[in-house]
Amino acid sequence: MLTVIPIPWTMTSVIVKPEKERTFVPSDARQKMIESAVTLLALRGLEGTAFSDVIERSGAPRGSIYHHFPDGKDQLVEAALELAGDRALGALDRLHGSPPKAVTKAFFDLWRAVLVRSNVRAGCAVLAVTVASDSQELLDHASSIFRAWRGRIAELYVEGGMAGDAAERLAATLVAASEGAVVVSRAERSLEAFELVAAELLAVTPGPASANTP
Amino acid sequence: MLTVIPIPWTMTSVIVKPEKERTFVPSDARQKMIESAVTLLALRGLEGTAFSDVIERSGAPRGSIYHHFPDGKDQLVEAALELAGDRALGALDRLHGSPPKAVTKAFFDLWRAVLVRSNVRAGCAVLAVTVASDSQELLDHASSIFRAWRGRIAELYVEGGMAGDAAERLAATLVAASEGAVVVSRAERSLEAFELVAAELLAVTPGPASANTP
Repeated sequence: MLTVIPIPWTMTSVIVKPEKERTFVPSDARQKMIESAVTLLALRGLEGTAFSDVIERSGAPRGSIYHHFPDGKDQLVEAALELAGDRALGALDRLHGSPPKAVTKAFFDLWRAVLVRSNVRAGCAVLAVTVASDSQELLDHASSIFRAWRGRIAELYVEGGMAGDAAERLAATLVAASEGAVVVSRAERSLEAFELVAAELLAVTPGPASANTP
Repeated sequence: MLTVIPIPWTMTSVIVKPEKERTFVPSDARQKMIESAVTLLALRGLEGTAFSDVIERSGAPRGSIYHHFPDGKDQLVEAALELAGDRALGALDRLHGSPPKAVTKAFFDLWRAVLVRSNVRAGCAVLAVTVASDSQELLDHASSIFRAWRGRIAELYVEGGMAGDAAERLAATLVAASEGAVVVSRAERSLEAFELVAAELLAVTPGPASANTP
């Protein structure tokens, strides 16, 4: 079945093929480009994430990237940072009511999944941008994500019974240690360092490791 | 006073000016280029460390960089990684006989100095290379440095009375957490996150914080 969908930005419409035939759909092209940018930033860093690489990886037609990101690469990188930041926040939002140790475990689980899926080659897009950009806008965005992560984790720790000061210290340490552990493990192409760090942080986080139950 | 020094690689000699007049001395040109590369990697990342930038920063004549690094940029980056790795190992070597907490404190002191001297703009050259290179040689070199750092720290912890397993976990965590804390602080252009992480790691490291005494 073919569906005709009006596309507001062109004031025309396109014919959307059913799932099996679909190769490119304008409505999710932007999202695919952003997802590709997150992956490339995590794998190759900021300079390894050119428009041409994103086009190749996302399968989007060349013209569409200039349509969706008319201000250039930094605009795409901003969107990629936002997606990377929101993914972790979304995972943290599912942890309300969990004991602190379960929060620590869940955050390491997120990063372990990134390492395992990529054969220990990918890391954090936000970190990759921070160490390779001198754009104040991109650094501000990276900063707001790191602050949001550690703020949200500290809230969860406090909900789980920790004092505010201790929660802030441990939350900053969880973000820093997991970021650093991912980099060390990528260099070493091994999860060994990552697992040592995860074990240490779990040991110093109070509470049982079980997830929240209704 | 002018001194004539023979230069083996050119089979000629150059006149070396006394300290005040000296602008460029072949014997330390290579070292200056390597030091400049470490600084640029720490400030701008791998792609921001071009030969032209290193020449500009080190004040070396253009031709000399091709003389000293005939295999190209990766050869210079290798040398920069080695210097960055050795600097931290040299600092760790002065800590034999110190209690574990003093080792943790000293490692954070090293990184705090990097942040403070650079107005919270510089970080770790080894991390910068890891997240932006797919050269197996460079990753192997980065890996050997991270392993050397955490191995040396674990040795110091064991010397200071910790059990081997606990020492390995805490050493991996110290390297990862300080690396991550430096990145987060750079993004935030503030030492706040760094100091929270340092306080947390100091709190979980056993022993008094005083340095070793004879």
